[in-house]
Amino acid sequence: MELLKERIRKDGVIKEGNVLKVDNFLNHQMDIGLFNEIGREFKRRFADERIDKILTIEASGIGIAAIAAQYFGVPVVFAKKAQSINLDGTMLSAPVESFTHKRRYEVIVASRFLRPGENILIIDDFLANGCAAMGLCQIVEAAHARVAGIGIVIEKGFQCGGKLLREKGLRVESLAIVDGMDAATQTVQFRD
Amino acid sequence: MELLKERIRKDGVIKEGNVLKVDNFLNHQMDIGLFNEIGREFKRRFADERIDKILTIEASGIGIAAIAAQYFGVPVVFAKKAQSINLDGTMLSAPVESFTHKRRYEVIVASRFLRPGENILIIDDFLANGCAAMGLCQIVEAAHARVAGIGIVIEKGFQCGGKLLREKGLRVESLAIVDGMDAATQTVQFRD
Repeated sequence: MELLKERIRKDGVIKEGNVLKVDNFLNHQMDIGLFNEIGREFKRRFADERIDKILTIEASGIGIAAIAAQYFGVPVVFAKKAQSINLDGTMLSAPVESFTHKRRYEVIVASRFLRPGENILIIDDFLANGCAAMGLCQIVEAAHARVAGIGIVIEKGFQCGGKLLREKGLRVESLAIVDGMDAATQTVQFRD
Repeated sequence: MELLKERIRKDGVIKEGNVLKVDNFLNHQMDIGLFNEIGREFKRRFADERIDKILTIEASGIGIAAIAAQYFGVPVVFAKKAQSINLDGTMLSAPVESFTHKRRYEVIVASRFLRPGENILIIDDFLANGCAAMGLCQIVEAAHARVAGIGIVIEKGFQCGGKLLREKGLRVESLAIVDGMDAATQTVQFRD
């Protein structure tokens, strides 16, 4: 998605340790006009899939998923993060290791919001090691629903998440895939 | 807002301890069609205010703020919650005590996303004791910006938050004000 790549080039800030900061428009301040273009593009890419619900994860996936949902005409469920939980049989959960925050947590979804047989589109802002997406897939499977696809705004192509998910036969659509970045020159290489 | 009240009556679940669960449509599963009606109503109520930016707080404020922002044509900034932070001069923060989770945390906003003189509309899903809204107001003041108003989806009118904010001269618009609820009969009394 050219508009998104241009925006990353213009407003993204690269920090040492392969950190790409896009908090100016994506995950702290949110450019809702851009989010609409992102939502429209997800709909274009998943036009041939039946989607019953969008599943995302707090916090930065929520805004993108909410706007994208308008193009699909479906509700959004967002998974919650908790460091410890008491499962009472009404919640589905999966463990996730965060790349950015270097900690482990559980992602949780109330089981009544994912029904058997539903077609679920997973949406998130970033895909790096794939742990969050993998956790969401586990939850969808536990609900006996189907992952219809995974829509990612920015994929770090040099980390293993995209490869792992695609090898499992999942359809991953990333609107920008970053293959490399250089903090010294503040340049980003995108996959074609 | 009649549509919202009807929805609360239909899908809200009242638990002992004055807990109103609306996770079916507001803060876990999100009904984006309803969010659009909420956004439209916020715009109608704040039509006479100049709004430069919407400020909300993770996680459940984000979806509502993102959809509402479309009616105002402005970006959204969401404050982050952290249990401990290292302030490096580029962040604004305020302490908040959570009613639901019975814990204290800091709300944080990067200072470059709130500029002096900007007119900020604060949006959140719930107003109870007013701590979160108060924290956001403190951050807006610290940025030398102005709170143009506070838009709340559900106010618990029997708790002190709304009173405290209004007594400070802040304009609070709550789309549904709950004056009482009864877990035994599952009934909600709304303010007229």
